[in-house]
Amino acid sequence: MGKGERTRAAILDQALAVTSTEGVTGLTIGTLADRLGMSKSGLFAHFGSKELLQQAVLEHALALFTERVLRPAVARPRGLPRVETFFDGWIVWIREGVPPGGCPLETAAKELDDKPGPLRDLVARTHGQLIDFATDLARRAVAEGHLRRDLDAELFAFEMTGIAFGFSHMHRMMRHPGAERLARTAFAALLDRSRPT
Amino acid sequence: MGKGERTRAAILDQALAVTSTEGVTGLTIGTLADRLGMSKSGLFAHFGSKELLQQAVLEHALALFTERVLRPAVARPRGLPRVETFFDGWIVWIREGVPPGGCPLETAAKELDDKPGPLRDLVARTHGQLIDFATDLARRAVAEGHLRRDLDAELFAFEMTGIAFGFSHMHRMMRHPGAERLARTAFAALLDRSRPT
Repeated sequence: MGKGERTRAAILDQALAVTSTEGVTGLTIGTLADRLGMSKSGLFAHFGSKELLQQAVLEHALALFTERVLRPAVARPRGLPRVETFFDGWIVWIREGVPPGGCPLETAAKELDDKPGPLRDLVARTHGQLIDFATDLARRAVAEGHLRRDLDAELFAFEMTGIAFGFSHMHRMMRHPGAERLARTAFAALLDRSRPT
Repeated sequence: MGKGERTRAAILDQALAVTSTEGVTGLTIGTLADRLGMSKSGLFAHFGSKELLQQAVLEHALALFTERVLRPAVARPRGLPRVETFFDGWIVWIREGVPPGGCPLETAAKELDDKPGPLRDLVARTHGQLIDFATDLARRAVAEGHLRRDLDAELFAFEMTGIAFGFSHMHRMMRHPGAERLARTAFAALLDRSRPT
């Protein structure tokens, strides 16, 4: 990594911290420059515009999620182990608050749902890839004989997503002490009813 | 309703529209005054501070949700009819975008999860009441003999919430044409496995 890339990566880490508490629409060149003690013109040189900075930070969050949640899943044997590792990684991602203020992609989905533009497109595309990933894992678990042949893989992915979002809400917003138990119990029951009979 | 109350209600409707797209943290006395063509001092006279305005708009959203989703449910016979009407009302609330930019209480949960203070407390309390309401409906459906005696009512409410949040995400953010089918199928399956055997 050259000096320029290292600087860019350090800036993006700070930008991610801002975004995870303030939201991506709260991330501006000005607020980030203040936080980094850099000049606004220096930041412009790296990102070109507020919109490109916002895109870059969401792509940075996606790269982190890929590294911590998706990659460990695909490193496991095909079928059920990948499904279980993916769900577990997602729960840990939400629980540990990586980044600390919660997943900026999840918050961005709420911030941007009624704001057409390239940033919304990026978030929608990213979430679409996540759901496709989950659906594909379920389909492969069917092919391996780990889940039942007549499973609706799209419905399985929808239910898994709902459990993760419900967990995020009960854990991060409500600080409900039983949130993780509820999420893991619901997921175990989803797996149970999806197994071959 | 006196003139003061009517003015306050009209202001809150506009404030709700701002909040549903900009988030509650994007709602300020200044932006709302611009939108209403009112003076900032006039708005201060009604609400006292930005924080009190933000609280008032979230309470206004809760009053709307109560009127459109909770009240029709409790108007139905005890037990399963209330559970079904509540879920249906929630789906319609999300689908129709009431208010148009999506539920400000749902967005606020993401905006505020790491921002301690009275506004966060208000949102957490409101969501806690919603989950208690759902849990209580499930318990009463058990008491009526509509759902099975060993049902975990808290888990039922968690799963129902997850389906609603999953629907909100797939419908509002992803514009997925099958979102409502998935949500209704998942809920029907939740009811099926919760019935007495």
